[in-house]
Amino acid sequence: MMSEYSEMSREELIKIKEDLDRQYNQFKSRGLKLDMSRGKPGKEQLDLSLDMLGILKDDDYRDATGIDCRNYGGLDGLPELKQIFAEILDIEPDELIIGGNSSLALMFDSVASNTTHGVRGGTPWAMQGKIKFLCPSPGYDRHFSICEYMHIDMIPVKMTPTGPDMDEVERLVASDKMIKGIWCVPKYSNPDGITYSDETVYRMANLKPAADDFRIYWDNAYCIHHINGKTDKIPNILRECEKAGNPNMPMIFTSFSKVSFPGSAVSCIASSKDNIKYIKERFSVQTIGPDKLNQLRHIRFFKNTQGVYDHMNKHAAIIRPKFEAVINALEGKLSGKGVAHWMNPTGGYFVSVYVMNGCAKRVVQLCKEAGVVLTGAGATYPYGKDPDDSNIRLAPTYPSTDELNTAMELFCLAVQIAAIEKLLNK
Amino acid sequence: MMSEYSEMSREELIKIKEDLDRQYNQFKSRGLKLDMSRGKPGKEQLDLSLDMLGILKDDDYRDATGIDCRNYGGLDGLPELKQIFAEILDIEPDELIIGGNSSLALMFDSVASNTTHGVRGGTPWAMQGKIKFLCPSPGYDRHFSICEYMHIDMIPVKMTPTGPDMDEVERLVASDKMIKGIWCVPKYSNPDGITYSDETVYRMANLKPAADDFRIYWDNAYCIHHINGKTDKIPNILRECEKAGNPNMPMIFTSFSKVSFPGSAVSCIASSKDNIKYIKERFSVQTIGPDKLNQLRHIRFFKNTQGVYDHMNKHAAIIRPKFEAVINALEGKLSGKGVAHWMNPTGGYFVSVYVMNGCAKRVVQLCKEAGVVLTGAGATYPYGKDPDDSNIRLAPTYPSTDELNTAMELFCLAVQIAAIEKLLNK
Repeated sequence: MMSEYSEMSREELIKIKEDLDRQYNQFKSRGLKLDMSRGKPGKEQLDLSLDMLGILKDDDYRDATGIDCRNYGGLDGLPELKQIFAEILDIEPDELIIGGNSSLALMFDSVASNTTHGVRGGTPWAMQGKIKFLCPSPGYDRHFSICEYMHIDMIPVKMTPTGPDMDEVERLVASDKMIKGIWCVPKYSNPDGITYSDETVYRMANLKPAADDFRIYWDNAYCIHHINGKTDKIPNILRECEKAGNPNMPMIFTSFSKVSFPGSAVSCIASSKDNIKYIKERFSVQTIGPDKLNQLRHIRFFKNTQGVYDHMNKHAAIIRPKFEAVINALEGKLSGKGVAHWMNPTGGYFVSVYVMNGCAKRVVQLCKEAGVVLTGAGATYPYGKDPDDSNIRLAPTYPSTDELNTAMELFCLAVQIAAIEKLLNK
Repeated sequence: MMSEYSEMSREELIKIKEDLDRQYNQFKSRGLKLDMSRGKPGKEQLDLSLDMLGILKDDDYRDATGIDCRNYGGLDGLPELKQIFAEILDIEPDELIIGGNSSLALMFDSVASNTTHGVRGGTPWAMQGKIKFLCPSPGYDRHFSICEYMHIDMIPVKMTPTGPDMDEVERLVASDKMIKGIWCVPKYSNPDGITYSDETVYRMANLKPAADDFRIYWDNAYCIHHINGKTDKIPNILRECEKAGNPNMPMIFTSFSKVSFPGSAVSCIASSKDNIKYIKERFSVQTIGPDKLNQLRHIRFFKNTQGVYDHMNKHAAIIRPKFEAVINALEGKLSGKGVAHWMNPTGGYFVSVYVMNGCAKRVVQLCKEAGVVLTGAGATYPYGKDPDDSNIRLAPTYPSTDELNTAMELFCLAVQIAAIEKLLNK
C-alpha cells in the first residue's frame, strides 16, 4: 500500500515530484482547451430535447383551456405546466408560479422585493440596517453573488453529510434578528451533492427566527437530477413549515434548466398561497407575464410528469459514465496519498474535491496553465474565500468522457504537485 | 348642420336622450361581450408570425457565430439580433442588450436598480428621500404603476401636439433635484398617438436637471408601428444627448411584442456603452441570460431589418381598417355635437378620445353595463386620476372590425348620453 505523502522524506517527495512535473509538462505541451468550470449539460444531453425545438406546428398555439399562448396575458403559467411542477414538488398548483427561463432571476427578484418592499409588506430590508444571510458552505456561488450585490452580509455555516450544521443554524437565527435568510440546496447540494436528512428538513421547518421576516431560500435546483436511476426523497418543506406554524417561511425554487434547454427552459417559484398572492401583485406591475409558447413547448414535449421523470433517466444514463470517470480517476490516482478527499454524489452536477489545505488555488492555477479551466478556487464560499483554500468543484457534464479522462489525469497530477510543493515548503 | 348639445334647450336634450336611451337599451339586451381595453394585437396579426412557431428544425440551434443557443451563456443577445435592433434604433450593437419577452420588465428593473444601487453607483434613490418622476399625461398606465409600486411621486406634465410641455419639463427638472426621471413614449404615444417634434427631442436631450442622477425613460414601444405605410422619424435621442453633454441620460426601451408574438417576443434596452456596462454587471448576477433560442427564431423569421419593416407593413394593412372604423364612427356620430374630440393617430395602438369633462367614468360605466369593456377612465393618468375625467383610451386592434363597429356604435351612444346627463344636471 502506498504511504501518504506527508509521511515521506524530502528526498522521496522530490523524486516523485520530478516524475509528476515531467508528466505535467507533457500535458502543457499538448495545448489543451477544456472547461470543467460550470454545471452545463453536454451536447448529448441537449440533444435529448431536440424534438422540442420544432414541436409547435402552425396550428398549435392553444393550451388545454383554450388560451392563445401567443398573446399577452396570464401571470402564473399554463395550468398543465403548473400541474407538472406541482406534482414534482408535491404541492398544489396554486402554490406556485411559472417564471421565465431562469430560477436565478426569481431568487434575485425575491431578495430585491424584500429589500425595497419588505417581506409581505413589512419594513423593507433596506431600511433595517445591515442584514445578513446564512450561507451553508461550500455552496452555490450565484447565491452568494446575489447577497454580495445586494450588500447582504454572509455568514458561512458548515455543511455536514446531512446538510447545514443545524445546531449552528438554530443558534444563529434565534439570536440575531438581522439574519433574514438562508440559502439551501436541499437535494444533491452544489457542490457537495449532499441531500439533506429528514431531520435537517424538520429542524429547518421548525426554526424559531428572531426576525419575523426570515425566509428560507429553498433552491431545489436538482430535485429530479439523480445520477443512478433513483431520486433521493426529502420531506416536503412547505408542509413541514405549515405544521411548524411557519407557513410563509419557505421560498421554493426549481427549473427545467437542466431538464430541457438550459438557456430556454421554464422556472418555478413556490410558496404558501398567501405568499404567491404577494408575488403575483408584484409580477402584475413588473412584467407582461412569462413566455407561454415556451411553456406550451414543454407541455407538448413532456406530456406529463412521468414524461419528465423518463427524460431525467435519459440524462442520468448520459452523465453517469462521466461522474464515474471522475470518481475513478480520483480513486485511481489520489487515494491513499493523503492529498485529497472527495464526495461521491448520487445526483446533481458536481464532484466536490477537498485538496490539501492551502492548495486549491494552486491546483486551479496549475490546471489553467495546462489548458483546463476549473471553477475558481474559493468560488463555493461567501466572498470567494475558502478559509481552508481546499475545496474545488468539478463539473463533469459538459466535456466528453474522453476530454474528461484527459482533464482528470491533469487534475490529479496538479493535486499531487500542489501537495508536494506545500510539504516541501513547510 | 347639427348644433352642439350645450346650445340646446332642456326639452330638445330630453327628446334626444329618449331616443339614445332606447338605442342603448337595445344594445344592452344583446348581451355583448367585447373588450377594447388593452393594446393587444388581434388574431389576424398573430397569424402573420405563425411560421415562426416551428421555424427551428432539429438541426438549427446555432447562430451565425456558432453559439449553441440551447445552452447557458451570453448575456447581451445574439449578434444578428443585436444588429437588427441597432438598425431599427439607429445606434451601435454594443449600445444595447437583448432582454426577455418584456420590455416592461427591463424598465421595472432599471428603476429597481437605481432604487437600491443608485445611478451608476451613486446614492441609491431609496436613500435620497421621496423621489419624483415627471409623467407626461395622458400616458401609459403601466409606467405609472411602476412609479406607484416603487413609491415614486408622480408629477403630471401636460401633453401637447408636439410632445410633453417642454417649458414645464425644463422648469421642473432644473428646479428640483428630487426629480429623477421622466417617462416618454416618443413615437405614437400611448394613448394620444403623438410623435414628439424634433424640437421636443432636442430640448429633452438638452435638459439641465438639478439631479445628476436624472434619467429619461425613453419607451420607444411603437418605433416601427405605423398605420398608414410610413413611419414617423424622430431625432436620435442617444446621439442628441451625447451632443448635449448628457451621454448617459437616456434609457431606451423597445420590443417586438407587437411585431411577433406579444407573450413570446424579445425586448431591448439601449443606452450609452458605459451604461450598458453597468447593466451587464447587474444582469450577470441576476440571470443566466435571455432565451437565445427565441432570439434565433426571430432571426430566422425576419432574416434582417428589412424583413421586420416588411412585416410591419402587413400589420399596418390589418389594423388600418380598424382604426378607420373607430375614426369614422367618431366622426359620423359625434362630430359637431360638442361632446367629444379625439386624436387621429398615424401609428401606435390607441385612439385617444376626450369626452365632455366629468363624463369619462360615466361613459366607461355605460359601456360596461352593455357588455363592452374599455380601459378604465383615468387609467392614463398618474394614480388613475384624470383631473378632467375626460380621457378615454380606445384600443381597436383586438376585436374584429364587425365587433369594433358594434362597440363604437355603443360607445358613441354612451358619450352622448353621458353628455346630456351632465347638461341636464347643471
